[in-house]
Amino acid sequence: MAQLSTKHLLGIKDLTPEDIELIMETAHNFKEVINRPIKKVPSLRDITIANIFFENSTRTRLSFELAEKRLSADVINFAASNSSVKKGETLLDTVNNILSMKVDMVVMRHSSPGAPHFLSKHIDANIVNAGDGTHEHPTQALLDSFSIREKLGTVAGKKVVIVGDILHSRVALSNIFALKKQGAEVMVCGPNTLLPKYIESLGVKVELDIRKALQWCDVANVLRIQLERQQIKYFPSLREYSTYFGVNKQLLEELDKEIVIMHPGPINRGVELTSDVADAENAIILDQVENGVAVRMAVLYLLAGGNNN
Amino acid sequence: MAQLSTKHLLGIKDLTPEDIELIMETAHNFKEVINRPIKKVPSLRDITIANIFFENSTRTRLSFELAEKRLSADVINFAASNSSVKKGETLLDTVNNILSMKVDMVVMRHSSPGAPHFLSKHIDANIVNAGDGTHEHPTQALLDSFSIREKLGTVAGKKVVIVGDILHSRVALSNIFALKKQGAEVMVCGPNTLLPKYIESLGVKVELDIRKALQWCDVANVLRIQLERQQIKYFPSLREYSTYFGVNKQLLEELDKEIVIMHPGPINRGVELTSDVADAENAIILDQVENGVAVRMAVLYLLAGGNNN
Amino acid sequence: MAQLSTKHLLGIKDLTPEDIELIMETAHNFKEVINRPIKKVPSLRDITIANIFFENSTRTRLSFELAEKRLSADVINFAASNSSVKKGETLLDTVNNILSMKVDMVVMRHSSPGAPHFLSKHIDANIVNAGDGTHEHPTQALLDSFSIREKLGTVAGKKVVIVGDILHSRVALSNIFALKKQGAEVMVCGPNTLLPKYIESLGVKVELDIRKALQWCDVANVLRIQLERQQIKYFPSLREYSTYFGVNKQLLEELDKEIVIMHPGPINRGVELTSDVADAENAIILDQVENGVAVRMAVLYLLAGGNNN
Repeated sequence: MAQLSTKHLLGIKDLTPEDIELIMETAHNFKEVINRPIKKVPSLRDITIANIFFENSTRTRLSFELAEKRLSADVINFAASNSSVKKGETLLDTVNNILSMKVDMVVMRHSSPGAPHFLSKHIDANIVNAGDGTHEHPTQALLDSFSIREKLGTVAGKKVVIVGDILHSRVALSNIFALKKQGAEVMVCGPNTLLPKYIESLGVKVELDIRKALQWCDVANVLRIQLERQQIKYFPSLREYSTYFGVNKQLLEELDKEIVIMHPGPINRGVELTSDVADAENAIILDQVENGVAVRMAVLYLLAGGNNN
Repeated sequence: MAQLSTKHLLGIKDLTPEDIELIMETAHNFKEVINRPIKKVPSLRDITIANIFFENSTRTRLSFELAEKRLSADVINFAASNSSVKKGETLLDTVNNILSMKVDMVVMRHSSPGAPHFLSKHIDANIVNAGDGTHEHPTQALLDSFSIREKLGTVAGKKVVIVGDILHSRVALSNIFALKKQGAEVMVCGPNTLLPKYIESLGVKVELDIRKALQWCDVANVLRIQLERQQIKYFPSLREYSTYFGVNKQLLEELDKEIVIMHPGPINRGVELTSDVADAENAIILDQVENGVAVRMAVLYLLAGGNNN
Repeated sequence: MAQLSTKHLLGIKDLTPEDIELIMETAHNFKEVINRPIKKVPSLRDITIANIFFENSTRTRLSFELAEKRLSADVINFAASNSSVKKGETLLDTVNNILSMKVDMVVMRHSSPGAPHFLSKHIDANIVNAGDGTHEHPTQALLDSFSIREKLGTVAGKKVVIVGDILHSRVALSNIFALKKQGAEVMVCGPNTLLPKYIESLGVKVELDIRKALQWCDVANVLRIQLERQQIKYFPSLREYSTYFGVNKQLLEELDKEIVIMHPGPINRGVELTSDVADAENAIILDQVENGVAVRMAVLYLLAGGNNN
């Protein structure tokens, strides 16, 4: 079996283009599986996976849990809000305790950038980063790329603009890495205050005018405004944001072409996207969700194989 | 296979008498299953069910979860308090996201009357209403009817009084529909302020005196006082309520017959029922709980069959 | 099959030495199971277990849940914070409701000492006490004994000191019972204010000087300081506690022998134990966690067998 070059999925940054290709092909097979009447395969029947979520995330946790169950893995869920973390235990002690119970893989979300990388240096089990602070969210970027491939045939050569709060977005950073490694052209568009200073060093274009950004692209990946993350005083208000960067039908009708609309969810309807845009034919938002299960099955399957064979 | 006339179980109001009969017969078979040493059947092995609870309900959620596991379904739980609902996502977006992960059936509790009906117009999956605000709680009414049949042989022709806060009770409304459709005579009894103005239009008798109500009936279904629902200033105090409408042993001994006592739980002992009444031979409160699993298995099984065949 | 003398595991106090021996031998077999590539046995395939936790405990709950899944039991989790307990229902009503859904065994944690004993007089299902207030935590003591056997070959004749807040510790009390029944010598060491007055009546030595205690023992089981339990004004501060009773490398190096270090977790590093002690070769803290799954499998397996045969 072809294998990933890595034991963990910590971030897209560490993946080779071949790794991404292998994940895409494997996910393609699993997407067939989850659309069959019998949606399960016995692949990970002897594997126990712990979903350790130090931050709430119903959507991502459910997607991983379903992926794990479709692969017939045993699943245990650990939500940090009910846990010994509050009792002063270190992250490494918490995870080592769970692993001592004979857990094979860890899917972890944590509010601190680099938490899964730190862990990977101290533990043997495979780690999948399900989001680490403002750093990376690799499975989101992989499912986004899978969805672009499915819609447009390929990522290579496509022009993708990521719209929104780039500075605080792990989705943006993972997508930039993933898209570049697959040969896409990438642009970011958002308020000046929400673009990181280093952004051009990543080889992406910057555009402050949403009209020009949409005119340039084949695909617009419109990020959620995560008010809970912003602490910047001069951040535009929601109304200002939606006026200057919200994507609405009129903007799309002004274009001389049809572009693909993506969103990682949950949508603030009327802020990032108007409802007519979110529900239009060329929006693939629910496909992204569906593909998320297939892509996560692929990642878990490949990491387990890399470990066991 | 006989089928339900409906794709969803939104409320008893939508069921035909034949639907109710079919559910009762199917539940009868499943009650045998859950009392065998091997309590499981493979019927829904390829079905994934999401329990989406926007309101807490340990009892109902556990009952559905056990019913689903006894049918060998794959189960995912979504508790709205930990979810993207708090992040401003619409109900339809939340549910569509979960369904995009290839979920076949949705069991939903929601605080808004009509929420599952709204959803049923926009999604393909089967929906089971596990309680929508003060509106309906159809599986509770079905398990109550099943329990009356089990105790008295039939519902038709029996006199059933529902005691308590009828105005705010989804259990009362669903029971009224279910009992009437099966040919029972129905009375409600409670403080005047807690009886809806339209109540007589439903074809039920009204009685303000608990003694007369108990003397009239074969079965008293005594509702829980849900303090969390009442916002009416002139509501009787708990002490007044228990003095005038609480069912105690003395009241029952004054009758010239034995009546069946039911309660949907959780009991406020000493308020709606004294302990000697709750624990007496003719109280079938724990039978109701047991029958709840069988009835929910029947509903899920029939809806899945109606969808797949 | 050899059987336990008891239908429930309420506390170590009720076990015979033969019971403990049987659990140890059975756990030894299960430890082999959980270290195989296929970590599961079908032993409890037809058994449904409810984990009813009225107090949060991620670690213990996960350990029980994994033990149950390794035995192929059906598992339902009930966390009291989301439950009808808040609605004024009695403990017995809550548990009877869950049992009416055809649950075979109950694993229960409760803040009140004696809660599982009370239940055992009123219900038929097997009960496993997963910690009842400051009273007993029997599976913790069993896994501690198992870990000592594994490290030192036997418990009989060994000298074990339990260090810390003995007064409020269910781990201490269960360990004292378990160790004495297996023929160990037991000492407790801690601040005078945190030693119960009746302690010497249990046949244990008392030592206020940590140096002398460590010099005496073969094994030091160092308890967690559970600040949430203490309401005593003259309790030493954390700094005082760690100065006078914290175990650090220097203390261990002063000894003329190597002793085994245990801790039930979660560790407050720098309070009860310094990191170099917690991570040293002779600390078996993570072995305790691993053995916890095997010991809990043994307890559940033996109780189910005692009930079914």
